[in-house]
Amino acid sequence: MRVSGVRLPGPMHTLLTERARSFRSSVIRDLLRLVDRPGVLSLAGGLPAADCFPVERIAAAADEVLAGAGPLGCEALQYGPTEGDAGLREVLASRTGAAVGCTLVTAGSQQGLDLLARVLVEPGDTVVVEQPGYVGAIQAFRAAGPRLVGVPVDADGLCTEILAAHLRDGLRPKLVYTVPNFQNPTGVTLAVHRRRQLGELSDRYGFVVIEDDPYGELRFDSPALPGIGEFGARVARLGSASKILAPGLRVGWMTAPADLVDPVVRLKQAADLHTSSLAQRIVALLLADEPFLARHLERLQLTYAERAAVLRAALVPALTSEPARGGLFLWADACGVDTAALLLIALEHGVAFVPGSAFAVDDRVRSTMRLSFASLPATELVEAGSRLSAAFAAYEGNG
Amino acid sequence: MRVSGVRLPGPMHTLLTERARSFRSSVIRDLLRLVDRPGVLSLAGGLPAADCFPVERIAAAADEVLAGAGPLGCEALQYGPTEGDAGLREVLASRTGAAVGCTLVTAGSQQGLDLLARVLVEPGDTVVVEQPGYVGAIQAFRAAGPRLVGVPVDADGLCTEILAAHLRDGLRPKLVYTVPNFQNPTGVTLAVHRRRQLGELSDRYGFVVIEDDPYGELRFDSPALPGIGEFGARVARLGSASKILAPGLRVGWMTAPADLVDPVVRLKQAADLHTSSLAQRIVALLLADEPFLARHLERLQLTYAERAAVLRAALVPALTSEPARGGLFLWADACGVDTAALLLIALEHGVAFVPGSAFAVDDRVRSTMRLSFASLPATELVEAGSRLSAAFAAYEGNG
Repeated sequence: MRVSGVRLPGPMHTLLTERARSFRSSVIRDLLRLVDRPGVLSLAGGLPAADCFPVERIAAAADEVLAGAGPLGCEALQYGPTEGDAGLREVLASRTGAAVGCTLVTAGSQQGLDLLARVLVEPGDTVVVEQPGYVGAIQAFRAAGPRLVGVPVDADGLCTEILAAHLRDGLRPKLVYTVPNFQNPTGVTLAVHRRRQLGELSDRYGFVVIEDDPYGELRFDSPALPGIGEFGARVARLGSASKILAPGLRVGWMTAPADLVDPVVRLKQAADLHTSSLAQRIVALLLADEPFLARHLERLQLTYAERAAVLRAALVPALTSEPARGGLFLWADACGVDTAALLLIALEHGVAFVPGSAFAVDDRVRSTMRLSFASLPATELVEAGSRLSAAFAAYEGNG
Repeated sequence: MRVSGVRLPGPMHTLLTERARSFRSSVIRDLLRLVDRPGVLSLAGGLPAADCFPVERIAAAADEVLAGAGPLGCEALQYGPTEGDAGLREVLASRTGAAVGCTLVTAGSQQGLDLLARVLVEPGDTVVVEQPGYVGAIQAFRAAGPRLVGVPVDADGLCTEILAAHLRDGLRPKLVYTVPNFQNPTGVTLAVHRRRQLGELSDRYGFVVIEDDPYGELRFDSPALPGIGEFGARVARLGSASKILAPGLRVGWMTAPADLVDPVVRLKQAADLHTSSLAQRIVALLLADEPFLARHLERLQLTYAERAAVLRAALVPALTSEPARGGLFLWADACGVDTAALLLIALEHGVAFVPGSAFAVDDRVRSTMRLSFASLPATELVEAGSRLSAAFAAYEGNG
């Protein structure tokens, strides 16, 4: 029966946009729920080491920020500018070499991805992502309704030669996304000649490069390479306090040409007005404290380098992995084993990882896995490696 | 000259989406820049009173949060669940009467508006807004590309009878937006019979009501009225710590049916992963501290009630305004004067307000103005009233 002239309301999901109905939670987030149970040693998360958070320095900074009340009261508790706290933007500009006017504070670099996709991508536009690549970026892009094209990653990072061939063949992306340093999930770093090629391609074909760099300062032994912005004018570079200070602050930043920053700021005003003033000022104090920051980064580098080496040494020989040069992850090749199937057995053995298929744009099953070495102490990494060996043996026994 | 096969890159704005090219900064934000100069007494902002921020209580909460490190290190600094900190969600559920599963923490209620628009509004869908209404909501909705329809507000709030007539005539909105308590900008409160009608209309016609309630607890003398959710099933209620604790924390919340909360959570995961864990835990401690909160709210209510009365008494007789019953704003009728023109003269006299036309969906010039009484002490409100009188006299002298 139908009431004349009135659409009988259907269930709530019929009101959702087509895209909202298709949103999926991240496979990795769902997985983290699964593995977050007593007795499982998780190499699955992308969490930085909580035992390295500079808790006392952050507490001191919070006290300092909240003690400093100006003539307008405590400004760290009042509404602030959408672009970000002026003091933090100055520190960021000085650290990145960008102009203050080209610097925007975001709620983590995840928000930078979302805002950039929203101002640049019309439904049906092409976005190039790394294959395998960071799942959170793919999620943010998907919300804008693009056609996603994966370009492979090898030992020198994103294969810009393959991208160049696609461009010659007529591909016209709006955006090309890359994590140039210690990529998530593979840990590889984009070689200098490819940075140059990517910058030149972006100028030539007029796409924007998103250079997402959360791990660049978690560098164990290799020298820093020039940013892609050295080679092209259309580069939006994302940075974050999440991996070098603490992710719970939710402070990231974007540096980009002013004519890209401006529309992003206007959208951010509608999206959340501005990022937490308290968190911004805490980050500003910590980043400006150069002696603290140098010591803290050195501690992170040493800790992560040790953990990476310990985990790699603890892996069963059937799992081959290049040594990590920085970042949070080892990327291992399981020699033909279906790592999604292996994960179920691994969970029974009390260890978790992320199967490589989770990082693919399509559903190709891959015989790879991402192993995070960052958030467990060395003894537990050794135990995790030995459980993984047992899982491997059980899998082979079944096979 | 054109390089064969290559689109010569145009300037950056040619890469932006059509909607991003049309984004405008909020008139009010632009205005705030203009008035934020020495010597101007501003009644223009929507800022809460910085001299009432519970700075010491917040500092103590920050210390407490950062001192409490569990077995996983300081969880307030680690990544957290997209839905929000479990402890804060419990406090919110207990304060709002909603189930924990129907409670989501957002980056201020502004983010709630943006996320709801993104999951519900396809380009071309109809969204009903109050006329005059909150500019930030209109901005958030505009980013989703809807047709905006304004429905008037009178002394009893949103004219639901007029909305009902539109619905009978075939209007089929996806969303109807209202600030039911001490509305921005008019200060009016939605009458109970209209709350009932709005809830019933939303059930009958199948639209979602956004009940945006940042001011409900800034109540001077009137009793609390039932929420719209008492009368309809499709209500998303937004709350915020911004006006009762401090906006710089950027913590808000949404309570809604689980089948609406779920897609919003999936989108928030792509948008910013989660809201600052540190800020969430500070807010959780303060909201759970009932003796503190009762004293603090009483102080806010007394302060704002006094300031509202002082400002109203200081207004020139040509400006008529109902007494404020809560919230931050007086809404004044300037008896036919073009308040946008008056503002320029007022700035010369060292006082600022927001002309009513800033709150309209279309560009209709209105002879009204919004006067914020919240953020200036009584002596400065008296001075602001006298400068406004002088501006009025100068305007009439010119006219």
